[in-house]
Amino acid sequence: MDKITLSYFDFDGGRAEPTRIAMSIAGITFEDDRLSFEKFREMRESTPLNAVPILEIKGKTYTQNNAMNRYFGKQAGLYPSDPWQAFLCDEVLEMIDDMSLAMVRTFGLEGDELVQARENLTSGPFKRGLQMLDKRLEAAGDEWFADNNFTVADIKVYVYVKRLKSGGLDHIPADYPDKIAPRLVQHMERVAAQPGVVAYYAGRGE
Amino acid sequence: MDKITLSYFDFDGGRAEPTRIAMSIAGITFEDDRLSFEKFREMRESTPLNAVPILEIKGKTYTQNNAMNRYFGKQAGLYPSDPWQAFLCDEVLEMIDDMSLAMVRTFGLEGDELVQARENLTSGPFKRGLQMLDKRLEAAGDEWFADNNFTVADIKVYVYVKRLKSGGLDHIPADYPDKIAPRLVQHMERVAAQPGVVAYYAGRGE
Repeated sequence: MDKITLSYFDFDGGRAEPTRIAMSIAGITFEDDRLSFEKFREMRESTPLNAVPILEIKGKTYTQNNAMNRYFGKQAGLYPSDPWQAFLCDEVLEMIDDMSLAMVRTFGLEGDELVQARENLTSGPFKRGLQMLDKRLEAAGDEWFADNNFTVADIKVYVYVKRLKSGGLDHIPADYPDKIAPRLVQHMERVAAQPGVVAYYAGRGE
Repeated sequence: MDKITLSYFDFDGGRAEPTRIAMSIAGITFEDDRLSFEKFREMRESTPLNAVPILEIKGKTYTQNNAMNRYFGKQAGLYPSDPWQAFLCDEVLEMIDDMSLAMVRTFGLEGDELVQARENLTSGPFKRGLQMLDKRLEAAGDEWFADNNFTVADIKVYVYVKRLKSGGLDHIPADYPDKIAPRLVQHMERVAAQPGVVAYYAGRGE
């Protein structure tokens, strides 16, 4: 097995977290390179797109978190082989990145500007996105987003909804997802109870 | 065959153009619903995420252009079955969306603000992105981006580089890609000569 390093910020969330979980479930040994913001500032210019996550395999560096989710998801049995089910999985993966990017654009704002920007999110794109995901989940049978199986789409939504519910995002109340998309909160608990996810976080605690 | 409608703005480019080409190569009959900006303003609130492209199948509406590219790409024989080659294809698909989004954020700016924003793109993310794509193409054998075959990644880069080279984007000189990433300009001509691409645009001209 070639050495694999995944570099991202040092917290259990964000754009690399689904990849970490998928790699863990696939049984892939990798270096979980967790960057301080200071370290990221130092290395940023040396990354291909001035951004993380980046994946290093055999000394080469790759980008794009959903490409990683798909690649390791396939190895973990977490990606549909049926093309239409893969579409439904992909649609969710890409939606969440759009919503996360909208959030990132509010980082660094302060005071009234931050209040207004977060209010714009919770009344606009986040509301629309969560409502759409809620409907998608219902249409798929109210258990998993695609393939009648646990997939990387479920992991992606789980990481995102957990972040929204953390209370750690100013002006986004922890019960916001419950009010907009209660199915996603139940889904979050369903994913958290999956053996592969439980094992991943148990390993993190060691 | 269920009726399929793809709705997007009325020009031969942007985020839906690779999907149109892939559907054409797959031999799929679809309604190419081309929206005026006025029509989009009228219908925007009725779309799931206030955005296009949207895809309608059996009266249901779907989003996310790269999910569409992958789904129809598979039907057209334009998507790798090997997981690593699929990763390389996906990385390109997702990179281009990031770069396109950076461009969209400069729309509506005027005067010095527009000059500065475009200068920031051409000296920053566009330069990095094009250079990375140029290296990726070289590493893949300087013909196609993945799978030693023509794939949706090639179509995606082609549509994007063609737009940059159009001269229609203020403060982005038509020879900008030639200076930064000459392999991509040769690649653009290679894709334009593909029989499926030639046939698609010939059909558009009718």
